[in-house]
Amino acid sequence: MSAFKTLREEAYEANMDLYRHSLAIYTWGNASALDSGKGVLAIKPSGVDYEKLSPGMMVIVDLEGNTVDGDLNPSSDTKTHLVLYREFSCIRGVTHTHSPYAVAWAQSRKPVPVFGTTHADHCAMEIPCTEYMSSQAVKKDYELETGNLIADTFKIGNLDPAVINMVLVAGHGPFTWGRSAAQSVYHGVILEEICKMALFTVSIDPRAAPLPEYITKKHWERKHGPDAYYGQK
Amino acid sequence: MSAFKTLREEAYEANMDLYRHSLAIYTWGNASALDSGKGVLAIKPSGVDYEKLSPGMMVIVDLEGNTVDGDLNPSSDTKTHLVLYREFSCIRGVTHTHSPYAVAWAQSRKPVPVFGTTHADHCAMEIPCTEYMSSQAVKKDYELETGNLIADTFKIGNLDPAVINMVLVAGHGPFTWGRSAAQSVYHGVILEEICKMALFTVSIDPRAAPLPEYITKKHWERKHGPDAYYGQK
Amino acid sequence: MSAFKTLREEAYEANMDLYRHSLAIYTWGNASALDSGKGVLAIKPSGVDYEKLSPGMMVIVDLEGNTVDGDLNPSSDTKTHLVLYREFSCIRGVTHTHSPYAVAWAQSRKPVPVFGTTHADHCAMEIPCTEYMSSQAVKKDYELETGNLIADTFKIGNLDPAVINMVLVAGHGPFTWGRSAAQSVYHGVILEEICKMALFTVSIDPRAAPLPEYITKKHWERKHGPDAYYGQK
Amino acid sequence: MSAFKTLREEAYEANMDLYRHSLAIYTWGNASALDSGKGVLAIKPSGVDYEKLSPGMMVIVDLEGNTVDGDLNPSSDTKTHLVLYREFSCIRGVTHTHSPYAVAWAQSRKPVPVFGTTHADHCAMEIPCTEYMSSQAVKKDYELETGNLIADTFKIGNLDPAVINMVLVAGHGPFTWGRSAAQSVYHGVILEEICKMALFTVSIDPRAAPLPEYITKKHWERKHGPDAYYGQK
Repeated sequence: MSAFKTLREEAYEANMDLYRHSLAIYTWGNASALDSGKGVLAIKPSGVDYEKLSPGMMVIVDLEGNTVDGDLNPSSDTKTHLVLYREFSCIRGVTHTHSPYAVAWAQSRKPVPVFGTTHADHCAMEIPCTEYMSSQAVKKDYELETGNLIADTFKIGNLDPAVINMVLVAGHGPFTWGRSAAQSVYHGVILEEICKMALFTVSIDPRAAPLPEYITKKHWERKHGPDAYYGQK
Repeated sequence: MSAFKTLREEAYEANMDLYRHSLAIYTWGNASALDSGKGVLAIKPSGVDYEKLSPGMMVIVDLEGNTVDGDLNPSSDTKTHLVLYREFSCIRGVTHTHSPYAVAWAQSRKPVPVFGTTHADHCAMEIPCTEYMSSQAVKKDYELETGNLIADTFKIGNLDPAVINMVLVAGHGPFTWGRSAAQSVYHGVILEEICKMALFTVSIDPRAAPLPEYITKKHWERKHGPDAYYGQK
Repeated sequence: MSAFKTLREEAYEANMDLYRHSLAIYTWGNASALDSGKGVLAIKPSGVDYEKLSPGMMVIVDLEGNTVDGDLNPSSDTKTHLVLYREFSCIRGVTHTHSPYAVAWAQSRKPVPVFGTTHADHCAMEIPCTEYMSSQAVKKDYELETGNLIADTFKIGNLDPAVINMVLVAGHGPFTWGRSAAQSVYHGVILEEICKMALFTVSIDPRAAPLPEYITKKHWERKHGPDAYYGQK
Repeated sequence: MSAFKTLREEAYEANMDLYRHSLAIYTWGNASALDSGKGVLAIKPSGVDYEKLSPGMMVIVDLEGNTVDGDLNPSSDTKTHLVLYREFSCIRGVTHTHSPYAVAWAQSRKPVPVFGTTHADHCAMEIPCTEYMSSQAVKKDYELETGNLIADTFKIGNLDPAVINMVLVAGHGPFTWGRSAAQSVYHGVILEEICKMALFTVSIDPRAAPLPEYITKKHWERKHGPDAYYGQK
């Protein structure tokens, strides 16, 4: 374990963090951390309860999906993570959860409209939702194809994964990413909050309109634009 | 108590587990554990608060419903458990709760559609919901008839209780089962989560469509099929 | 305080119990305990935070509403409690809360239909909801008139407060009662749970139908009828 | 820090209180406390996690928005607070949160109707909701214009901020205020509860009617009118 101690601890903390934020129950969900220098990632082992997880259980996998170090099988979603790391070169952490509000939007197969500034503070457009995977793709390498489905959604929509760090896989649930495993979980928590607020909004008014573009842009830019002024230096 | 110590502890832990997962309040709900070798089960006593429960209070009942050991009345739903153990020979644990999302689907008398992979990971078809019990059956042995209603729903629908381990009794609530009392509670927690996500989904889109069959099948098989690859060996 | 120590402790525990069950925030809600022998009740002082409550703060009031013992003003709803104790001679405890699901039904001014057995286990008919108080009555003694509104609803509907121990005051919220202060809180918790399940049910199906009368009757009787068999002797 | 120790502690406690009441996650939301004698306010620093906050981090700002004392950048919403303090001379505390039910009403751009007495106890009319800010205003000093938008909503509607201490900014979320920072948070908690109950109410009946004016008036006056009789002297 010593060679990948820090990476394992980063992945472990991210997995525990998503569990503490109630984004998953039992063994559901998984987070990974990438060491781009070594070309390996640490990921949650498959089917292990969060309550029983320890840093040493994190599995070290290379970018082709070979287990480099670790006694357990890596998450069954490992290949989805791998595709995201390969396609979205800017990212260092990936989180997948079954958080209920995000899953509900994924199950309704609707992108989440920008109903308000909470959303715009983190994403300047609607949260993308993929199409269903085709039956041809499902017959191939399913988890790898889930990654391809996300990557294709971003290519076709001309979306920048450095800016939009969250997606809903139709009928499945959310994947989020970031510059670290911790940040990918942070984006998972925020996505769940945005999805909750959006569901509440359509419960009050099923025809609620999205925020005017000029307000969305302002909120995004005050946090993430070239002249951002939110937070500390 | 000594003769059935392990069985009582198993039933006690299952009952406390359903309470800790907020599947029931006060005295509602009950879980039982079967010892198929001895032909007896341990079940929660009727009307006792979870806060006051202890392993020694679990009542030992044989498969005809006679109390074999214990000072208290067994759960008023004991006969429903008995029918399930007799009809579904593969099972060793049964859980009944009044968890609110599952109850709501039971009260709306709708099977829960397979809206997503969270559902498909655990059940490859909609969660069955019984018809209302007939007034003739209610006049007979009500709790035994509740068991018969479930068993008939499975026979008529040609459903396999080894594969579909959960049901909604119309206007009442969920029953779940498994290879142990603990697993029957686990299925109760998952059913509640599936029902919550399904309610959120129809709140976003009352006409939400179920997952394509080929995705449902894939998810079920990666966890439970002959070539399942989820989890550890 | 010594003369009414037990009564005060009973009222205090009931008030803390409704707070622990999240039926009220800050100073909202109140519970009282009646000593029918002495003709006095102990009730929460008006506008005091639950976090700061102590048994000695409970105010002792006679059935005409005069403070018999205590340094604080009694709950502003005291006269509503008094009317209920005078009109419903069988009761020894009253609880009023602003629990959100019960308030929502009260605000929608709809009696809660018997959608399922959770409801029928505790109440064999829909939870009654009063009319709005008339403007004439509001101009009189408002809290006393709230009690009269409840009592009239029971008289006009020919309802038995020994059997139906809960009501929704239109546009306001729930009042529950019982054979003790503790039981009145217990009924408040159950009412909130029934209202939550009913809201979830109409969210799934706005035209959900009530339980057939013969199932409602069966469930009520197995818990409360002359041949009740739920619980311990 | 010594010169503004008390003011900083007041602001710190208010910020922690809004976090403990789950009105915001991570760094969202902010509360401030005004010292009207010294003409300064203490406010949460921008972008700092509640988990890491300490009293000494609170930033002291004068009424023109200049930092008087403190090492960190003040909240990005500071200018909104400043406008409220300047326009609403009666107030000493302001709270802004992203609490989900209040945000949902703000996102649906609907004032919250007075559906019941919980609302009327705290506000005798619907909770006002602003218009969207114009694109011209967004191009100017955005946070200052947010304050102007609120102030204009009150002027145009002839609303008294001493009586109505809460507003929804369309597409954004709630601002609340009070005679102290603590009271502004208290109003934020109550607003969230009112918004939750209102959402539940329209979920039961999308055409639910508001409370008759004479009941609203009565409830408001028993708590806040010249002859108020709620609470202790």
